[in-house]
Amino acid sequence: MEGKNLLRYVFLLFVTVLFILFTLSNLSSPPSNTAELLDCAAYSPWCTSKNRIQSIKPEILQKPTAPTRRRHSADVPRHPLDPLTIPELNKVKEIIQKHEFFKNKAYALHSVVLEEPEKKVVLGWRKGEPLPLRKAAVVARAEGASHVLTVDLGSGEVTRHETGHLSGYPTMTVEDMTSATLAPLANADFNRTVVERGVDLADLACLPISTGWFGKSEEERRLVKVQCYSMKDTANFYMRPIEGLTVLVDLDTKQVLEIIDKGRNIPIPNAANTDYRFTHQNSYQRLVNPISIEQPKGPSFTIEDDHLVKWANWEFHLKPDPRAGVIISRAMVRDPDTGDMRSVMYKGLTSELFVPYMDPTNAWYFKTYMDAGEYGFGLQAMPLDPLNDCPRNAYYMDGVFAAADGAPYVRSNMVCVFESYAGDIGWRHSESPITGMEIREARPKVTLVVRMAASVANYDYIVDWEFQTDGLIRIKVGLSGILMVKGTTYTNTDQLNNQENLYGTLLSENVIGVIHDHFITFYLDMDVENTENSFVKVNLQREYTSPEESSRLSYLKAVRSVAKTEKDAQIKLKLYDPSEFHVVNPAKKTRVGNPVGYKVVPGATAANLLDLDDHPQRRGAFTNNQIWVTPYNESEQWAGGLFVYQSHGEDTLQVWSNRDRAIENKDIVVWYTLGFHHIPCQEDFPIMPTVSSSFDLKPVNFFESNPILKIPPNFEKDLPICKADDASA
Amino acid sequence: MEGKNLLRYVFLLFVTVLFILFTLSNLSSPPSNTAELLDCAAYSPWCTSKNRIQSIKPEILQKPTAPTRRRHSADVPRHPLDPLTIPELNKVKEIIQKHEFFKNKAYALHSVVLEEPEKKVVLGWRKGEPLPLRKAAVVARAEGASHVLTVDLGSGEVTRHETGHLSGYPTMTVEDMTSATLAPLANADFNRTVVERGVDLADLACLPISTGWFGKSEEERRLVKVQCYSMKDTANFYMRPIEGLTVLVDLDTKQVLEIIDKGRNIPIPNAANTDYRFTHQNSYQRLVNPISIEQPKGPSFTIEDDHLVKWANWEFHLKPDPRAGVIISRAMVRDPDTGDMRSVMYKGLTSELFVPYMDPTNAWYFKTYMDAGEYGFGLQAMPLDPLNDCPRNAYYMDGVFAAADGAPYVRSNMVCVFESYAGDIGWRHSESPITGMEIREARPKVTLVVRMAASVANYDYIVDWEFQTDGLIRIKVGLSGILMVKGTTYTNTDQLNNQENLYGTLLSENVIGVIHDHFITFYLDMDVENTENSFVKVNLQREYTSPEESSRLSYLKAVRSVAKTEKDAQIKLKLYDPSEFHVVNPAKKTRVGNPVGYKVVPGATAANLLDLDDHPQRRGAFTNNQIWVTPYNESEQWAGGLFVYQSHGEDTLQVWSNRDRAIENKDIVVWYTLGFHHIPCQEDFPIMPTVSSSFDLKPVNFFESNPILKIPPNFEKDLPICKADDASA
Repeated sequence: MEGKNLLRYVFLLFVTVLFILFTLSNLSSPPSNTAELLDCAAYSPWCTSKNRIQSIKPEILQKPTAPTRRRHSADVPRHPLDPLTIPELNKVKEIIQKHEFFKNKAYALHSVVLEEPEKKVVLGWRKGEPLPLRKAAVVARAEGASHVLTVDLGSGEVTRHETGHLSGYPTMTVEDMTSATLAPLANADFNRTVVERGVDLADLACLPISTGWFGKSEEERRLVKVQCYSMKDTANFYMRPIEGLTVLVDLDTKQVLEIIDKGRNIPIPNAANTDYRFTHQNSYQRLVNPISIEQPKGPSFTIEDDHLVKWANWEFHLKPDPRAGVIISRAMVRDPDTGDMRSVMYKGLTSELFVPYMDPTNAWYFKTYMDAGEYGFGLQAMPLDPLNDCPRNAYYMDGVFAAADGAPYVRSNMVCVFESYAGDIGWRHSESPITGMEIREARPKVTLVVRMAASVANYDYIVDWEFQTDGLIRIKVGLSGILMVKGTTYTNTDQLNNQENLYGTLLSENVIGVIHDHFITFYLDMDVENTENSFVKVNLQREYTSPEESSRLSYLKAVRSVAKTEKDAQIKLKLYDPSEFHVVNPAKKTRVGNPVGYKVVPGATAANLLDLDDHPQRRGAFTNNQIWVTPYNESEQWAGGLFVYQSHGEDTLQVWSNRDRAIENKDIVVWYTLGFHHIPCQEDFPIMPTVSSSFDLKPVNFFESNPILKIPPNFEKDLPICKADDASA
Repeated sequence: MEGKNLLRYVFLLFVTVLFILFTLSNLSSPPSNTAELLDCAAYSPWCTSKNRIQSIKPEILQKPTAPTRRRHSADVPRHPLDPLTIPELNKVKEIIQKHEFFKNKAYALHSVVLEEPEKKVVLGWRKGEPLPLRKAAVVARAEGASHVLTVDLGSGEVTRHETGHLSGYPTMTVEDMTSATLAPLANADFNRTVVERGVDLADLACLPISTGWFGKSEEERRLVKVQCYSMKDTANFYMRPIEGLTVLVDLDTKQVLEIIDKGRNIPIPNAANTDYRFTHQNSYQRLVNPISIEQPKGPSFTIEDDHLVKWANWEFHLKPDPRAGVIISRAMVRDPDTGDMRSVMYKGLTSELFVPYMDPTNAWYFKTYMDAGEYGFGLQAMPLDPLNDCPRNAYYMDGVFAAADGAPYVRSNMVCVFESYAGDIGWRHSESPITGMEIREARPKVTLVVRMAASVANYDYIVDWEFQTDGLIRIKVGLSGILMVKGTTYTNTDQLNNQENLYGTLLSENVIGVIHDHFITFYLDMDVENTENSFVKVNLQREYTSPEESSRLSYLKAVRSVAKTEKDAQIKLKLYDPSEFHVVNPAKKTRVGNPVGYKVVPGATAANLLDLDDHPQRRGAFTNNQIWVTPYNESEQWAGGLFVYQSHGEDTLQVWSNRDRAIENKDIVVWYTLGFHHIPCQEDFPIMPTVSSSFDLKPVNFFESNPILKIPPNFEKDLPICKADDASA
């Protein structure tokens, strides 16, 4: 009994200390806006913890010299679409601070980004002209309400101030996320069960899990569910879940509302073989010799005014975004005949993600993430690792975002841009032995990749926008990182009656990889030549011949149909009823009369199979089709709605599309959803080899002929002369 | 009248000269077997024509030094699966020449390849042991019949001699193809119509087009249809069809059986802008700076005994094949824990292609190519162009094949092997701002590519077998080369009443790109750990919860079913009824009890939609499903049958599979068909940018955990120091 009392005493002491720390961390003054803040230091209580990489042997690591850190304090916008600069963000912060409504109030800024000028203004702007009026779009939380503001950076006025949107809340701030993970520690019951499960509180790692929406009961409160892991003996705490323990926290008050404490019989899986860090391997396997993409005459691209990328026959504006990750704007390709830059896409971005897990039990049913709108796909895009996340010849771009108090900070190396050459062939032809003509013509395929990688807690999403000289844009999503796993009492499948109640795969002793899907929905504001475009389905249909007509019984015919309204363009892909999907400019024809266009070319994908009435699926209804087309509307950019956190699904792409507006010969937006079913396997443990899928935007009668006919082949004299680095001898 | 008579006279003279040449070429003695014959010179009448690249400016071209030409005269086989060597092929030639049946007869050898030893013999063989008995499998035509022989290279005996197979004929010889294209020139009517259409006979380029089978009428004769083009002013004669002129030729006698002379009103399209050769461009567009994959310490692979490839954790046997292109055998991957080489696949190859065109009219309906069985996918695989078909760091392998008279010849640089690094990521994880742990781990993805490119007349197929260190094998097919186009009177789409009777797209004035499909069927004899495997469908099914059970209404459950017989494994892919397709070894389980396996992962693909009763589709019935599984049977390797030329479809994969044999826990073969629908567009004119698709063989619980967990990241010190070639300054 003495011992138990002592334990209680230690507990209470611990909790008190934690509570004080927690309070202090919430009261602590916002980081100085004069500093170029780094990603981790200011915003996470764990940054100074023991989790920093220890015992690095510099002679082993010898990490590449970090690219020169750019200072952004004096950045000036030079293009109408340039993101807000540090001075501009500081100005917004100041304007809000002094604003009648916000001054003397507690508030948090959930989003501060450029409010882009109207499309026609951007299209009319020419370099050298003064920039259109700079405005900030701000989302703030204050007095339990969400506020949508427009801040005019010229006048310093708030020119729009709306509250009371539909259901849902804004994207969590990083402060929301980190403080939520601390909140349970202020609860004695929580701490007790953690310790009783054999986890030292100092080893606790907790995640803020968006709750979704499952009916009326969760309304009127901004909620998060916190689940925790043991990080003892591994950086890969994700593999050591404290299964069944779920803490419901009020995100506004940080109050613990409920603790669900189940699964106490489930052991915490072992840490053995879970750490993936190079410095923590007891041995390593060098499978291949060093290999590198080399460009003896330097890269072929330039980045003008920090954001305008010019490469080969392409030009586009590139910017990091806290919600979308990256935004590609005004993508134009040069016509090889006229030399003109021709518009392809006004704006492309990752609009939303939907990641439903397939386990309906208490600690899992709500895991139906919308990573962009709930967590901020850009907020979670961490600095890329030179030489490994991107090759040696990469250029890095920083993100400049605002913290919850409005203070700007820099997410360094958030995006990389590089030329890729995999040894592939752009086009080729050899004459065969049939003709015997001595022709061997081949051209190497070189592409430009724009990459970011968002680490939404465990999962890593690698998003590539790959531009080809033949006019094709490939949008590729790679999945890596760490599975979200479930603790179990099982250590071998022979203990199971049947596999079905696992909801996944036994990956290691006491570890289940739970089945889940990933859907990534892209917003593609196509402007082929100009804004007025149509969406054409070119359906391949089996036709029959008459007996006297042909020895063939059947053939396939391409049947074109122009989508008149949105419902005509709600597309589910069908292998046995195939179509091409063209965005054409009806006013512009090629020399021989074909409408100029680009087509959306799906790659391997997966469809959403949840019941349409399931709560998560109502919110994720934007994944009900693989393709949608809507008329351009500046308020329709986020497929799950502006406020997806706990939303009820009344503001999704599906709702907009079902209005069935006219889309023929209009400014149209194409939405494409890329999907993955993921049944985990042991190879995904403890960290997943990258799985990728992609789709393409491809010219279709956009050019008069092959636009890369005249590119030269590689000659030996153009290639570099290389030797091994002396240091490695 | 005088003029007309003169014209007739010139005609007759010309025809006579051609006939003499033609006869001579057929009577000419076979090439000496002592020489290392080159691809073109001996086998095509066009090789010495004006089509050789003219006016090459060496200082512009400066082609890379050709890899040292290997001499093969003294090659010795060192592995049971090594292809027949030059001495062995010469021995086969000699044995046939002296054989009782063939001596003093006219005959042609349509195939001379290694008859592989029985699987168990190969599996039992160890390096250093004497090779199993070497045998040749020979297909010959003599006395109007096809003969299937086994030649024992030890005893010099023909140990099997079968004639009278099902329907169909063997793959055309190169001599068949070239002589067929000459046959029409011996016909005055043909020559007259050609000249009357404005084409100089000296500018004629003709193609031998396999006729397919469309009913009883074509039986009992080996037929080919010859269609011709004008190569005046362009090497790209494919863009200048003499539309509607089809000559039916007997392949055995070279007799012209019928001339169909339609479409005389259709102009031959202009040559302008059709030539794609670098030396024939009046200007060129350098879009990117030189770029190269560099390996300062050399490649990481070795090729032992000319055919055994060892790279990273992989080992496999690689050989060129006249029908399949390349054959990968005994693919094994190293277990990172035990160091053992573990079997994945006994044999993989391109079994057949099926390329139906979608135009039922007279000159087009029969174009339903089966490129492997009709033309020889390997016979058409021309030398790869260093630096352009494969990157600088590539190794090249030659093919050694037999001509129609049995004489061996060398197809140099037919296959390349290289390591690829595109800047992609093998795996990664960054800790997010949520936890703030300072973790950034990423590993570069390096792969090994085995490539060949077959030019089946106009089309180029690039086949890559790409091996990844994580155990995945990606099989990728790229399509490039030149469209098969149709002449038309139209020069603009505004002349059309409706687009539908074009059967394709107007690509240029008078040029239609006809719609077609490509199907490429792969034979994959999977041996996961050993020969006894099962095929398991892991179907994702929507399950419903009860209201008291969960706030979720639905979720997806993985339901496994083992295929008992072949019909259980006739798979049509369904986006809305998705499955994984595992080949497992039921006798081998992982530590936690999952069956060890590999899965077939489809990529983007297209299905065959022709009517199942259509003649071409009966022959191409192997494309009726995307996946089939058969029990291993050494006679079932060619999905369209051993003899597909004019076959009736009684010997296809579908016929075998419909026997519905047991496949559970057996030695099984997986067949995967990759498909493309191709609606041509102007970008495909005059030569097509490469379009690719792929599928994967991927470990699924094959390894205990991520097999590349312990690979190191890139460090700056490992990368090369490069400079531009001085010569390029």
